[in-house]
Amino acid sequence: MPTLFASVLDEAPLLELFRQTRQRSLSMIEGLEPEDMAVQSMEDASPTKWHLAHTSWFFEEFALRPRDPSYASPDDRFAFLFNSYYVQAGPRYSRAQRGLVTRPTISDVLDYRAKVDDAVERLIQSGDAPPDIIELGCHHEMQHQELMLTDLLHVFSHNPLRPAYRQPEPLEVQKVADPAWIAFDGGILPVGHGEETFAYDCETPRHDQLVRPFELANRCVTNREWIDFIEDGGYTQAPLWLMDGFATMQRENWQAPAYWWQEDGQWMQFSLRGAQPVDPDAPVSHVSFYEADAYARWSDARLPTEFEWEVAAGPIGDGNFHESGRLRPAPARPGDDPRQMWGDVWEWTASAFLPYPGFQTAEGAVGEYNGKFMVNQFVLRGGSCFTPAAQMRSTYRNFFYPHHRWQMSGLRLARDA
Amino acid sequence: MPTLFASVLDEAPLLELFRQTRQRSLSMIEGLEPEDMAVQSMEDASPTKWHLAHTSWFFEEFALRPRDPSYASPDDRFAFLFNSYYVQAGPRYSRAQRGLVTRPTISDVLDYRAKVDDAVERLIQSGDAPPDIIELGCHHEMQHQELMLTDLLHVFSHNPLRPAYRQPEPLEVQKVADPAWIAFDGGILPVGHGEETFAYDCETPRHDQLVRPFELANRCVTNREWIDFIEDGGYTQAPLWLMDGFATMQRENWQAPAYWWQEDGQWMQFSLRGAQPVDPDAPVSHVSFYEADAYARWSDARLPTEFEWEVAAGPIGDGNFHESGRLRPAPARPGDDPRQMWGDVWEWTASAFLPYPGFQTAEGAVGEYNGKFMVNQFVLRGGSCFTPAAQMRSTYRNFFYPHHRWQMSGLRLARDA
Amino acid sequence: MPTLFASVLDEAPLLELFRQTRQRSLSMIEGLEPEDMAVQSMEDASPTKWHLAHTSWFFEEFALRPRDPSYASPDDRFAFLFNSYYVQAGPRYSRAQRGLVTRPTISDVLDYRAKVDDAVERLIQSGDAPPDIIELGCHHEMQHQELMLTDLLHVFSHNPLRPAYRQPEPLEVQKVADPAWIAFDGGILPVGHGEETFAYDCETPRHDQLVRPFELANRCVTNREWIDFIEDGGYTQAPLWLMDGFATMQRENWQAPAYWWQEDGQWMQFSLRGAQPVDPDAPVSHVSFYEADAYARWSDARLPTEFEWEVAAGPIGDGNFHESGRLRPAPARPGDDPRQMWGDVWEWTASAFLPYPGFQTAEGAVGEYNGKFMVNQFVLRGGSCFTPAAQMRSTYRNFFYPHHRWQMSGLRLARDA
Amino acid sequence: MPTLFASVLDEAPLLELFRQTRQRSLSMIEGLEPEDMAVQSMEDASPTKWHLAHTSWFFEEFALRPRDPSYASPDDRFAFLFNSYYVQAGPRYSRAQRGLVTRPTISDVLDYRAKVDDAVERLIQSGDAPPDIIELGCHHEMQHQELMLTDLLHVFSHNPLRPAYRQPEPLEVQKVADPAWIAFDGGILPVGHGEETFAYDCETPRHDQLVRPFELANRCVTNREWIDFIEDGGYTQAPLWLMDGFATMQRENWQAPAYWWQEDGQWMQFSLRGAQPVDPDAPVSHVSFYEADAYARWSDARLPTEFEWEVAAGPIGDGNFHESGRLRPAPARPGDDPRQMWGDVWEWTASAFLPYPGFQTAEGAVGEYNGKFMVNQFVLRGGSCFTPAAQMRSTYRNFFYPHHRWQMSGLRLARDA
Repeated sequence: MPTLFASVLDEAPLLELFRQTRQRSLSMIEGLEPEDMAVQSMEDASPTKWHLAHTSWFFEEFALRPRDPSYASPDDRFAFLFNSYYVQAGPRYSRAQRGLVTRPTISDVLDYRAKVDDAVERLIQSGDAPPDIIELGCHHEMQHQELMLTDLLHVFSHNPLRPAYRQPEPLEVQKVADPAWIAFDGGILPVGHGEETFAYDCETPRHDQLVRPFELANRCVTNREWIDFIEDGGYTQAPLWLMDGFATMQRENWQAPAYWWQEDGQWMQFSLRGAQPVDPDAPVSHVSFYEADAYARWSDARLPTEFEWEVAAGPIGDGNFHESGRLRPAPARPGDDPRQMWGDVWEWTASAFLPYPGFQTAEGAVGEYNGKFMVNQFVLRGGSCFTPAAQMRSTYRNFFYPHHRWQMSGLRLARDA
Repeated sequence: MPTLFASVLDEAPLLELFRQTRQRSLSMIEGLEPEDMAVQSMEDASPTKWHLAHTSWFFEEFALRPRDPSYASPDDRFAFLFNSYYVQAGPRYSRAQRGLVTRPTISDVLDYRAKVDDAVERLIQSGDAPPDIIELGCHHEMQHQELMLTDLLHVFSHNPLRPAYRQPEPLEVQKVADPAWIAFDGGILPVGHGEETFAYDCETPRHDQLVRPFELANRCVTNREWIDFIEDGGYTQAPLWLMDGFATMQRENWQAPAYWWQEDGQWMQFSLRGAQPVDPDAPVSHVSFYEADAYARWSDARLPTEFEWEVAAGPIGDGNFHESGRLRPAPARPGDDPRQMWGDVWEWTASAFLPYPGFQTAEGAVGEYNGKFMVNQFVLRGGSCFTPAAQMRSTYRNFFYPHHRWQMSGLRLARDA
Repeated sequence: MPTLFASVLDEAPLLELFRQTRQRSLSMIEGLEPEDMAVQSMEDASPTKWHLAHTSWFFEEFALRPRDPSYASPDDRFAFLFNSYYVQAGPRYSRAQRGLVTRPTISDVLDYRAKVDDAVERLIQSGDAPPDIIELGCHHEMQHQELMLTDLLHVFSHNPLRPAYRQPEPLEVQKVADPAWIAFDGGILPVGHGEETFAYDCETPRHDQLVRPFELANRCVTNREWIDFIEDGGYTQAPLWLMDGFATMQRENWQAPAYWWQEDGQWMQFSLRGAQPVDPDAPVSHVSFYEADAYARWSDARLPTEFEWEVAAGPIGDGNFHESGRLRPAPARPGDDPRQMWGDVWEWTASAFLPYPGFQTAEGAVGEYNGKFMVNQFVLRGGSCFTPAAQMRSTYRNFFYPHHRWQMSGLRLARDA
Repeated sequence: MPTLFASVLDEAPLLELFRQTRQRSLSMIEGLEPEDMAVQSMEDASPTKWHLAHTSWFFEEFALRPRDPSYASPDDRFAFLFNSYYVQAGPRYSRAQRGLVTRPTISDVLDYRAKVDDAVERLIQSGDAPPDIIELGCHHEMQHQELMLTDLLHVFSHNPLRPAYRQPEPLEVQKVADPAWIAFDGGILPVGHGEETFAYDCETPRHDQLVRPFELANRCVTNREWIDFIEDGGYTQAPLWLMDGFATMQRENWQAPAYWWQEDGQWMQFSLRGAQPVDPDAPVSHVSFYEADAYARWSDARLPTEFEWEVAAGPIGDGNFHESGRLRPAPARPGDDPRQMWGDVWEWTASAFLPYPGFQTAEGAVGEYNGKFMVNQFVLRGGSCFTPAAQMRSTYRNFFYPHHRWQMSGLRLARDA
């Protein structure tokens, strides 16, 4: 059976990818204290320490155990502690209690990582490594790198001292023009991943979709526009909202995007660079699908489908990804339209996360990667300023529940032609 | 602006439809006691009395108030009590507490109905009635007629005395053959409602869908097949389940369809005809989307999309609807394939309940009819033995949350060609 | 072993007590509709229908089954449905779902009562009835008569139509003077029940208590005084409150006694006589222990202990009990001090509900009557306008949780001499 | 107004007490990792780091701020973060989220402690320190020292790796004899604190209690006896339990004391010395009031009242306190009866935690020390192997909710003479 995670990497680029990926995780925890990396602020999030350990366990479980008989885990119980949800890979520690496991400490976890790194590098060099699994493990770790940031932001947001992960820096001042509509023709168009390069199972198979003529905004919705929505009573007008969204909004008392508050009439936002005035020209972020959908209705528009987005986006281009070091969405820069398709904020689409026609899962525990999540979630596209660029491509499908706000999630408008 | 609920009915058929519909509600409560009609067994369900009042309020609010200045409600506060969720029609009484409103009594509610009936009939006869609203009100009431039965079944199921709504009758003995696959070609095919007859907004506009070649089972999954699934450990094998489904199943301790239990090694089922042995040849009912999806995976098949179902079904035919008086799904009768598309059980599809391309809501409170529910739910097709036949058509989209089991919901398998 | 529920009643007075008690329950449901008697508004409360059935089951279980071999229950399953919490008397239906049992209907329950009445009367007349159990059953039913009223008030309070159980009548206008302190000497004083008449187990044994000199207010706290407390910020000043009380008050958003609201600057109260302006001179009612305790602290006073109350009260006197038909607390009438010890409102005491020294429970299920509740509750004394006078005496210990407000509960102040 | 926390300490012993107490906290965290001290395992517990900071804040708030104008807090926001529940001392950070505050780190908190230590020592030496507040602060810190251990045990108990706080050591083998009853006469006896030494407000005033003749077991209930209770179905027999206790036990699925499990037929217990076989001769610990009460009923005995305990105990003697370093209860040693009154395990009493007659609170925020907890809790007496000996005396009243099990809580039986 062909694996569903295609890889064409030879040994040298595989080793390079592995090293870069593993090193990025380490560079991301610079400046963090053991306490920062130990706690869990909600069930949806995980401690930094757990992310660091879980991504190592992934290589151990799916590459080292099957291929390297000489490998011995530093502690066999780590498999229980650091399995996330791979049922077929054995029992797991309760997700909601990841913040209670103070041992192994961050120091122990870094030792564990070093041991796994060493063994995987030797395995790659020996030629016995399964290249698809190694590549999958790297992409898997990149996903967790983004989660490390979103989860850390959530932890810090509960601290009245408002600690900054990275030093505040002056906000770039750049005024963006009003949005413009770009027209697309539609047709029977191919979408999904079909090349001999890495992609997740849920991006396959490549297949045709019937896309109707549509128009897409040339940039994301900005904070300024969102403030207009707030001031127009957007959070109080029931007809703008899906019923579940309105109920959630009222129960959670949402009155603005997550991490926003008002101080002396000025909207402020908590970010990985600490408390910051909201930048009116930057894309709005940390809004749920429910809010994005309500905003679109308020604008007499709608969210694009994931296929519209993919057709409009074309191949991946430059963007404000994790590598920029900015850690915040930036105002759209002048240039060709549509802008900001890549990086800055994940863009909610109108598409439920469902299997593509002909979707198949891989055999064994790896097959649990995406398929089991295909219910109750919505697709987001395009990556964010927290996303490593190396993991993105035009067919990439991110997905979250419609009430989720702790991700770097924003939106772009669409309408029927 | 054209209404989205098309109607071509003249005065006479309109009056006939109204009378038949209103009369059916009354005939359905024969044999019920005031207590049966007063209680609410869960937030998703409503008391019979509330259904009877709410459907009357609908005519009052959308037909009588705008068109009949002489009409006076028996109690202005009924609008508050019996509005369900039409935000634009004013405030509503808390949904979760409908079972606490002991007054008006069932007797008062029947008086209210009679007053509304009288006024609406006069309005129709006067020629001032808005025919689309009257027709919508009748279809709306037919939906609530089905809910009256599902909600009553839920109430009675909590009673250890196991009361029967209608007398038990001997089960028809009929063995059904193994299912067969029927092949369909696919193509660019029109779906949705486009005629000058009544349909809900969510069935429109008629539009093309790209349907791939597929195969559909010639009948619904039976109880016998479901017992095989149970006995094969279907409710314990995590890889068969969507993650949310597995979590729900474990939390709720599902081990069989709703209303099933075992007695001396025999599976029993509580129904509107009281406690009954499970009929192995009848379609399984009262399963959630999660269970239906897991069953399909266990069968190396999948659920059909709603478009596959609609294409395969063609125009509505005979079926075991409410009119049969059976109140239980029946074994598939010999005949042309596919069988059981109509009536017996609602069939879960793989399609999330989302707007059709170009979907628009009506203006005002009536526009809240379906659009606000278009998130987190799945489409079911075909009607059930609780559904009045008059409300069905091939484009009808029913929708419920994936964990819901109190509806008469079953499934039919599909697979790629 | 001597029973702990002493009785000296001969056959004739026993029959008289039984008939009067049973008849009072029936007279109390005059004017109620089947719906009113079927629903359950919270887990702490029960449907009227259930009270009527449970009190009949009590006689069936503890008198008829053991003593009348010819007695056959109309339905053996009633024992399961109508047992409240007597573990040793067999399994019980879930307390929280009593409102879901629509059958037997109120009509069936009245038939059941008639059958039990007939059998018990014959048993008494035959001389085979256990007099202590019959007497206990009557007192038990009187307790449930009070609960029928408190639970019904709770049901009706959820209805925006604000139905009245009994017709509103003009409020008696009577101004009460400021409260005065009455001094008591204290000493080693006997408390508890020691006579050859009926009392509950928890009132025994009679024993000495060391009571310190104290002063007691000559009347209950009035609504006027409570409004002063509200207006002085009583519900916002944390130092006045026990920690659990403050947390409960904030969580439940208490800002006044239960069933109070403001209308055009006037405090209103929902009662069994419908919506009424708050009578400033009547005793405050429907306050929790937490509120009563906070009020006392605000007044530089405290609640009396149950022993102080009992010593001060002396033998039972006249009072505004259920028999008055008033159904609301009345302003204190001129007369000897202390006033209002009997009837009007139950008075919260500072005493936790704990066993008296030497307390013993009866053998068998009857022994579960009070002992199992001796934790987390506080004692109230004196009866209320919902209490049948026949069940009161100076040693009577009522008890509820400190957050409970649906009872007719008020307070009287005390202080150290 | 005289303070209610009497102190006769001169400057030198005050300084000595302060230094010893503060040093003990530091010695207790030896071997702990930053992660161990950061997390919060339930709302009732707090992170070690929080305990260390809160006890410092106490000195800052109540001694330094009022008396040392030159003192500047290292961070004014610490007052918000580390106030526990002193409403009058200003707003507080949510108790349930103490585990989310990763900054200040443990290292920052230790710096904070050092700064406070330095300032307080100078204040004492200057003669300006309020001796009663300093002494109170030390006793307050000793209470938190015990909580640091109970809370840490709770954290570690969630870790499948079962980390040991202190190295396991062989269990002392010592068989204890069957318990014997010791008779006490009773009478009008003085209880409570009346000397010119430190005590908490809730221990005052000294006053008379009427104590009836009683008998007390000469030692605590052992694990062996508790296993007999388990094996006799103690956790399944409803008549043994208070109603709230039975419901709690079933909801929480208690089948043995907290931290117990079975391994190959052997009862094991998690302790601060890691996983250990249950020592049959040691006192049972980590049982709730509900369990202790049920055990007593099963034994045809009862729990002693707090006054019986105090009368029987006499002045404090030697015992297995924190200073022993054992960290586990030990079998009763031969010697004079009653044994084990001091140390080993806190002993649940039958007494609700209520104010003594004439109880008064101190003015200001310090007055919130104990009074606001006087509801819903039960008194425990005698201290445990986690308790610093210096904080104990015969009048000491500890109190916890009846469902609490994470404390070192056991029991001793009593009965009427």
